Order: sequence, then C-alpha cells, then structure tokens
Amino acid sequence: MAEEGVDVFREFKEHSVAEFFKKNRHMLGYSGKIRSLTTAVHELVTNSLDACEEAGILPDIFVKLEKLGDDHYRLTVRDNGPGIPPHIAPKVFGKLLAGTKFHRMIQTRGQQGIGAAGVTMFAQITTGKPVHIKTSTGDGTVWEMDVMIDVMKNEPVVKNKHHYPGNFRGVEVTAEMKGVDYNRGKYSVYEYLRRTAIANPHVSITFVEPDGKVTTFERSTFEPVKIGEEAKPHPFGITPDDLVTLARTSRAKNVGRMLTNSLHGTGGKAIIGLMRVIPRILNKEPQKLTWQDAEKIVSAFQIIRYLSEHKSARNMVERKKEDLTEEERAHYTELKKHVKTILGEEPTLERFYEVTGALLGIRIRGPRTDVLVPIGEERIKTSLRSNLKPSFVAVVERKPRVYSGGIPFQVEVGVAIGGQIKGFELMRFANRVPLLFDTGGCAITEAVKSIDWKRYGLNDVFNSPVVILVNLSSTHVPYTTAGKQAIADVPEVFNEIRQALMEVGRKVKEYTNRVGRLEELAQKKKVLEHYLPLVAGALAKLAGEDEERVTNLLKSLVEERYRKLNELMEKLEAEAA
Amino acid sequence: MAEEGVDVFREFKEHSVAEFFKKNRHMLGYSGKIRSLTTAVHELVTNSLDACEEAGILPDIFVKLEKLGDDHYRLTVRDNGPGIPPHIAPKVFGKLLAGTKFHRMIQTRGQQGIGAAGVTMFAQITTGKPVHIKTSTGDGTVWEMDVMIDVMKNEPVVKNKHHYPGNFRGVEVTAEMKGVDYNRGKYSVYEYLRRTAIANPHVSITFVEPDGKVTTFERSTFEPVKIGEEAKPHPFGITPDDLVTLARTSRAKNVGRMLTNSLHGTGGKAIIGLMRVIPRILNKEPQKLTWQDAEKIVSAFQIIRYLSEHKSARNMVERKKEDLTEEERAHYTELKKHVKTILGEEPTLERFYEVTGALLGIRIRGPRTDVLVPIGEERIKTSLRSNLKPSFVAVVERKPRVYSGGIPFQVEVGVAIGGQIKGFELMRFANRVPLLFDTGGCAITEAVKSIDWKRYGLNDVFNSPVVILVNLSSTHVPYTTAGKQAIADVPEVFNEIRQALMEVGRKVKEYTNRVGRLEELAQKKKVLEHYLPLVAGALAKLAGEDEERVTNLLKSLVEERYRKLNELMEKLEAEAA
Repeated sequence: MAEEGVDVFREFKEHSVAEFFKKNRHMLGYSGKIRSLTTAVHELVTNSLDACEEAGILPDIFVKLEKLGDDHYRLTVRDNGPGIPPHIAPKVFGKLLAGTKFHRMIQTRGQQGIGAAGVTMFAQITTGKPVHIKTSTGDGTVWEMDVMIDVMKNEPVVKNKHHYPGNFRGVEVTAEMKGVDYNRGKYSVYEYLRRTAIANPHVSITFVEPDGKVTTFERSTFEPVKIGEEAKPHPFGITPDDLVTLARTSRAKNVGRMLTNSLHGTGGKAIIGLMRVIPRILNKEPQKLTWQDAEKIVSAFQIIRYLSEHKSARNMVERKKEDLTEEERAHYTELKKHVKTILGEEPTLERFYEVTGALLGIRIRGPRTDVLVPIGEERIKTSLRSNLKPSFVAVVERKPRVYSGGIPFQVEVGVAIGGQIKGFELMRFANRVPLLFDTGGCAITEAVKSIDWKRYGLNDVFNSPVVILVNLSSTHVPYTTAGKQAIADVPEVFNEIRQALMEVGRKVKEYTNRVGRLEELAQKKKVLEHYLPLVAGALAKLAGEDEERVTNLLKSLVEERYRKLNELMEKLEAEAA
Repeated sequence: MAEEGVDVFREFKEHSVAEFFKKNRHMLGYSGKIRSLTTAVHELVTNSLDACEEAGILPDIFVKLEKLGDDHYRLTVRDNGPGIPPHIAPKVFGKLLAGTKFHRMIQTRGQQGIGAAGVTMFAQITTGKPVHIKTSTGDGTVWEMDVMIDVMKNEPVVKNKHHYPGNFRGVEVTAEMKGVDYNRGKYSVYEYLRRTAIANPHVSITFVEPDGKVTTFERSTFEPVKIGEEAKPHPFGITPDDLVTLARTSRAKNVGRMLTNSLHGTGGKAIIGLMRVIPRILNKEPQKLTWQDAEKIVSAFQIIRYLSEHKSARNMVERKKEDLTEEERAHYTELKKHVKTILGEEPTLERFYEVTGALLGIRIRGPRTDVLVPIGEERIKTSLRSNLKPSFVAVVERKPRVYSGGIPFQVEVGVAIGGQIKGFELMRFANRVPLLFDTGGCAITEAVKSIDWKRYGLNDVFNSPVVILVNLSSTHVPYTTAGKQAIADVPEVFNEIRQALMEVGRKVKEYTNRVGRLEELAQKKKVLEHYLPLVAGALAKLAGEDEERVTNLLKSLVEERYRKLNELMEKLEAEAA
C-alpha cells in the first residue's frame, strides 16, 4: 500500500515558533506605532525588574528614547541588576521560548521566554539590524555583542562579541526600531512607566524622552521587594496530566515520596491518610504511574478539598449518616463522583464512608503566601492617595487561591473616589506590571463590568470620578496572548476578582451610606434653618418673648441636634487625608 | 575569561512550542467548559471545510457529541473531503506549527498549523487518551490510527496504525475530552454551527446532540465555493524584511526577475520604470540584496502607490512645479522621504522630479479579487432576510485592500433592522468562520462602537432591534490569539471596517430618513383628519352645502395629497420582503 500524498500535501511544512510569531507579531503586542514601542519598553523593563528582584537588588532603571527619523526610534534600557552571563545572553535575546522562568512556579513578571527575543525580532524585521547588548555580572569584565534571530531555525546569530575590563554591573539593551512612534498619551511609554512606578514604589525609573526631557520616578520605599520563592503546585489544583508528566521525570523511590517532594503541603500526615485509600498507587515506582492511577490521586485530593470546605459534609461523614437531608444529599452526590473514580465502580454506602472517612482527618494548608508578592494593602492606599488625591480610598487584599494546575494566585483591589479624580478609570496590573492594552478582552474588565455597583451606592460608576485598581499576582498569570496585556477568563480567577470587588464594594457602601446620610441630615438641617425665623416669630408672639432670644434658642437647639453631622463630616475628612 | 553563569542561569532551558501552548492552553481557546468544547469543534470543522473547498467538494459535515460522564464528552467530526494521506496525518494531529497553510498566501479558515494538534493536546491533557483518526483519500484503502503528542519534543506519537479496504473518503476524528460541557447557549457548539451555516450556504451540517437530537443545517446553494487561488504579496504592502527573506531563497537570475516572479502585478512595465531609478539593485543577484537595497525598493513602490492615489501629486510631478500650493507641499514632504531613501541623501528639486517622474507612469493593479472568497452581497442579504425576517436589510461589500506585508483583505458588512429582530446583535466572521468569543478585544467590535450611529438615524443602536454582520476575508487574518476569536487592531483593517460601516450607515440613513419622513407625513395626515369634520361643518354652513358632501370632498383631497405616503409605504414593504 503506497503512502502517497495528494497534491496539496506536497506543500506540507514544519515551522519554527519564531516564524509563527514573526507572521503574527501582533500576538506579541507589536501592532500600531505607539503600542509597538510601549511593548518593547515593557518587555525589557519587566526583564530588568525581575532580574533585580531575584537578586535582591533595589532596581534603578534607565529608559531612553531617541528619534532617528519619521517613525524611527532608538530605545535603550539599562538596569543595575545581576547581569546576564555572556554565554546565556544570545539565547535570551535571540531565541524564543528559551529562559529561566517558563518552567518554574515563581512569581515573575516575564514568564514565557518570549519577551526579550520578541524585541530583537521586531527590531530586526523593521530595520534589518541586530540589538546591541552590554552585560556584566559585576566581575570586572564587560561583554558587548550584537544579537539577531535566524527566524527559520529560531536560533541566535551573534556578531561583534567582545569584552573589556570595566566596573559596570547589569544589562543595557539598545534596539533600533521603525514603524513606531512616541507621544505622551494613555498608551504611551510615559504612561506605562508612570503606572509601573505606582505599583512598584521600590523602583527608581529615569526616563529620557525623545525631546531630551528627563523624568525620574523616584522610589518611595527603600526595602527591596524579595521575589517570591519557587512554589510547589498545590494538590487541590493538580490534574492527572500534571501528575503523569511529573512521574515521567521523577527520581523519587515511589509515588508517595514523589507527592511529598513535588506538591505543596503533602507531608507525612497526608500520605498516611492517602495510604489507607490508594496504598498500591503510593507504593508504585513513579515511572509506572498510569493515567487511571493519577485520576485516583486527584480524586482523593478533591475529596480532601471538599471536606475541608464543607463543615456539614465533614459532620455527615463522621457520623456515617444514612438518612440524608437535602444538603447532605448534595454532598453525597459530589463526593460520590470521586469515590467512584477511586474504586473504579459505583460505591455502596459502606464503601463510600470507608473512603471518605479515611480522608476525613487530612488537612492540607492553603497555598503559601510567601510565594506571591502582592503590592500590599498599605502601599496601594498610599499610592492611590498620593497619586490621585481622592476623598475616599478602600483596599482589599484577598487570600491566595489556586486555579487549575495548582497554580497559586492572589487578587488585590483598590477603589478611590472623588477629590481630585476627574472621571472613571480602571487600572489593571498583573504581577505589578501595568496592562495598558486589550482592555475589552480582559477578565478584570469583565469582572468590573459584571458588578452591580448601584448596590454599593455608586449609581453611574463609569461616568463618576472613581478609580478602580486591580492587581493579580500569580506564579503563572493566565494571559490571553503572548503580548501579556489581558487576563483570560479562567473561572477561578474571574470569580476571585469579582469577590474582591464585592468585598471592596461593601467598604465603599459604608462610605456612600455615610455620605448619603450626611446629605440627608444636611438637607433636613437646611429645611429647619429655613423655617426657623418663621417659627421663632410665631413662638415669640405666642410667648410674648423677645424674637431674637427665641431665634437664638431655637438655633442652638438645631445645632445641638446636628452636632453629630459636624462630627461625621470631620471624621470623613480626617479619613480621606 | 571564564564564561560562567550566576546561580539562576543554571535553570536556563529551551522549550517546545507544544509545552508553551500546553501551559497556555487558554491562548488556543481552551478555557471554560462550554468554550473548550466549542473550540475543539471549531478547529476540526474549519479544517474539514478548508479541505473540501480546496478540493472543490460540496462539504457534508457530521458532528456528534456523546456525554460519557460529568464534564466528560466524546466528539466526532467527519467530512467528505479529500482525506489526509496516512503518512501526513500524524503531523497534522500530533505536531504544532506543521501544516500546508501557514506559509501560503491563500484564504483558508485555518492558517496556523495549530488547530488540529491543539485538539489532540487538549484531549490528551484532560483524559490521557489519544485522538482516533480515520482517513482515506478515496483510493479504496481506509487508514486508522491513534495519535498523541510528545509535548517535550512537539512530535507525534502514533499507535495502532492499520488499514483495510473500504469505500470511505474523507477524515473522521474522534476525541474524548474532560473538563468540558454542552448546552445550547450563545457560546455553544449549536450556535457555532448555526452561524457557520448562515455564512456558508453551500455547506450541509448534521449535528447530533448529547441527548440524541439530530439537527441538519441544509445547504441552500449547490455551487461549491472554490477556494481562492494562492496570492502573491502586493508590492504596496511589502516590507524590507519581506524582500530580504524572499531574496535569501530566490532562484531568480536577478532582483528584477525576483520581483516579477514573486510580487503581484510587478510585470515588465513596472520593472522598466524601476530600472530608471534603481538599476543597479534590479540587476543584482538576489542573494546579494542588502537591507538598504530592500528599503529603496520599498520606497519606490511607496512612491508609485502615493502617486496613484493622489491626482494632484501626479499633476505636480508631471509639470515639475516649483511654486507649490499648500496641498502640493504636503505631497512633496511625503514623497521626499522616499526619494531620500532611494538616493541616500537629501534630494535637490531637480533630483526629486527625476526620481518621481521616472515612477510616474507605473500603474500597479490593486490586489486580485479572485484570491479572496467573500460571502457575497446577495448571499448576505438572503441569509439575513431568511434567518432574521427584518424590515430592512443593507449590505456593503468593499473592494479588496492590503495591509502590511502586502496581505490582501476584504470587508463585508450587513445591517438588518426591525421586523422579527428582538434586540441588538453583532455577528462577527473571519473568512466565513463565526467568532463567538473575545468580543471585547476585537477590532470589529471596536469599529462598530466607534461609529456615531445617531448620524445614520439609529439613536440608541445597542438597545434597538438591529443586527450587524461583519465578515473579514483575508489570506492572513490578523487574529489576536492562536485561539482565533478576535481581530487585532491593525490600523488598515480597523479603518477599512469603519469605512464599510459608514458606507452601510449611509444606506441605513436613507431608510431611517424615509421612515422619519413617513412618520412625519402620517402625523400630519392624522392631524388633518382630526380637524376635517370641524372644517367641513364650518365650510358647509358658509357655503350652504350638504355637510356630508363637503366632508367627502375634503377627505378625497387629503387622500390625494397623501397618495404619495401610501406609495412610499408600499415600496418600503416591498423592499423588505
């Protein structure tokens, strides 16, 4: 039987990821003149910040734009980070999907191994020129080189590599680009750096604009942000595929050990509990773990999760109840799915309680908070107050959660109202990186829109002087594109952002209620004061008293009654300060 | 000098594109239970339709969903296409970025070589199982096999490959998936197939839902859609990088021949014109083409483009004008940039006219229309009328244009108003494929929102019974993501969609004006009829005539006056039918 192709398959080819992103450069954020330039700055600055934080260095970032012609600029980004070793630099800037971050569960801004090489590709396809790299790890030797990408192979091409003695430490990238433009608008490099400074008060950024104007966003805290430690996947979010992939390269003696080594909070106690349910799987060599085995492990973790989240389910299992209430019936249905997976058959009630009972005692802690580096409640408050001068600020920092794959994430939300704020603005951040583009397609935007803000006293929020800040921290932010400007609608993440917004909404409601009450009181007082002379006149006549005396008496009564009003107003002003 | 890495770079790794998309599966559209299932159907159905059309076959598509458990489904998609040769099938379904379409300038629905392998990856990471492929090119032998992806290597793993005699022709894919769900909502498989049928009246689709219900979307035209021929890049959109890349693999004798062979409409006449301006470049071997050479060629094309688009610029060059009007000064500035690139120095006025004059006579046709396959004005009208039963329909089909890289595209827009339409709906299509997701982040949505619909008599369009259909056809649709659900904001494309919407808006305005006039007339008539008995009574008394006679006389006068009204109303109804 000849395996012959029909005509069209003569054209069948394989392509490099560099070719793919060259043809789809807009997926990396390179579309539009203004946006392309901001994207390049974004990629280089995030790499610099990541490098500094990983090394525990207070970042000093220098960004310079020079106009070389129409739509033609030279960009320089320099940092004081640890530097990139000269044999690594070509891959960082000349090969897509190469890097230190992609495979690690660590909260960094970059995470894909695309950004820096993407800048090289954009520079190369618009000017035909390489990017110039200067790097030193601070060992007294400075390296310089020109880097391009061989697009068909996705491999770096290095030229003019040389070194000399010098005291520089860090990385300086110079890239020449065409088809780009600069202004100070809301999608500009300026706005990007300004927002970066808002969310990163430990960073100092110096920016030289094409006209030579120098702006320095000074740091306001001098404590370096220590990057989160590398996280282990959380068992509550792990999938069978994750376990099978893990097992294939595991060097652990058995699956039980592998779980303890590789997953978060799966220590001795948890393993003892699991041993009662799936002993044969835990004793297997990791390489022999099947998909069905992995599904059983996941089901066991899901039972533990469900029981830890539902007190009445725990109670039911503890008492091995037979007559179930409606709520318990729901618990039973939910848990039975997983028990069935573990047993490979429909369980009897006895078997059901055997399995769930064995897992009842296991507690697995929530994801570690120290792997995530949120901005922090106080820092957000300070930043919003000093940058926006509002009348009111409320901030909510939620606890870390996990989404699929056991990936920890955390949501922070700030709301600022009134004062010097002009109109509505949504400021989106992911791992403290401002997201300026793709607003419409972002889960943060969707979540903000999905909230009924009227319930919180904001009747026409999108036409009111309100700023909403949302920051999503995660060891793997689910971006919609490799351009990293919008968050995908991962249900767990979307719901958590909504929860955070509703929580901050309740704080807003307290404020709007007070404002409402105050306005009501002030209105009542105004009415009383309006009728006071009339009443005073009538009373004076009736009582035969001096009208002025009666007026003063009534006035002081009204003041007494509304002393509370003044107090509240003073309190409100004090809070806003 | 030792090239040693600091600690963190010990972790430096390279990753396969399969690993990247496995970790970022939402970039392929796999996020959310409903959406993931619709995405899988979308990928397989578009591949089937492309294959049928490329072979000139009227597509019969069969889609079946079986529920295997909670969030657990089996999907089967079968077509009557040309089949995939058995030695090619593993790469189609088991390797990302492999395919026939990526490098070709041809209008197909798929274009990335990711879709089919994406389904395999999603099935594999949710169930641990391969997809099952049955394929035959109709040569009497049917092949079956199971395909998975080795994610670390991005290579296919094939099992159970076997063949037997049989009369089947086409491809049948069976994929089992978990973490997916089905309903009939607006993001469902059902809605996706319904919209596919609206934009593809030559396709017959049979859909078996999980409950066994069978729906057939019958074809309404029996003419197979012939896929567009392969296009050559248009010189007006070509970039220096495109030319340099082209030159590297060109087998042409010289650059002039290369341009003639590889670019659209760059025949003898164009080359003769270019020879007068850049003879040395055109006579070079392609392999010796430098970036500067390529920039000069692009500048020459841009001068030709500019002159062909501006009559007064042509006039200015023809007369070698020295005293320039303000408009001519703008032409001069714009053209001079390119002349400067060609000459490598600031041109004198004489040299300016020498270069532009030499290029004056060259005409390069717009992109070929036959490489694009729009739905067609009449088909959109018929589809909107029969599916929506509106009172009014207007359709605009714009001429093909090019965006960067010389890629041709074409926009069609339809608007349907009133009748049985319930509320506002925007139906987005790209190459006749419905775009259900990522509405917010799409250039089509942005363009629709950017239009001042009030100017066209639609005062509150987003709360009115209005359906707007937009279809973008292109040999390379600029999708925002590999999930292919939204169009990126490429300026040329965005502006062309806006132009199309404004053009259709003017048609809508004629209608809303008429409706407005009619309503005004009807109002006036009503007023006259209201006062008629009063006037008739008064007249009758004055003239001593019978009141009934006067009334009838006046009534017939009014009817005469408003005959036009009835005519217009009848005309309007006839148009809507």
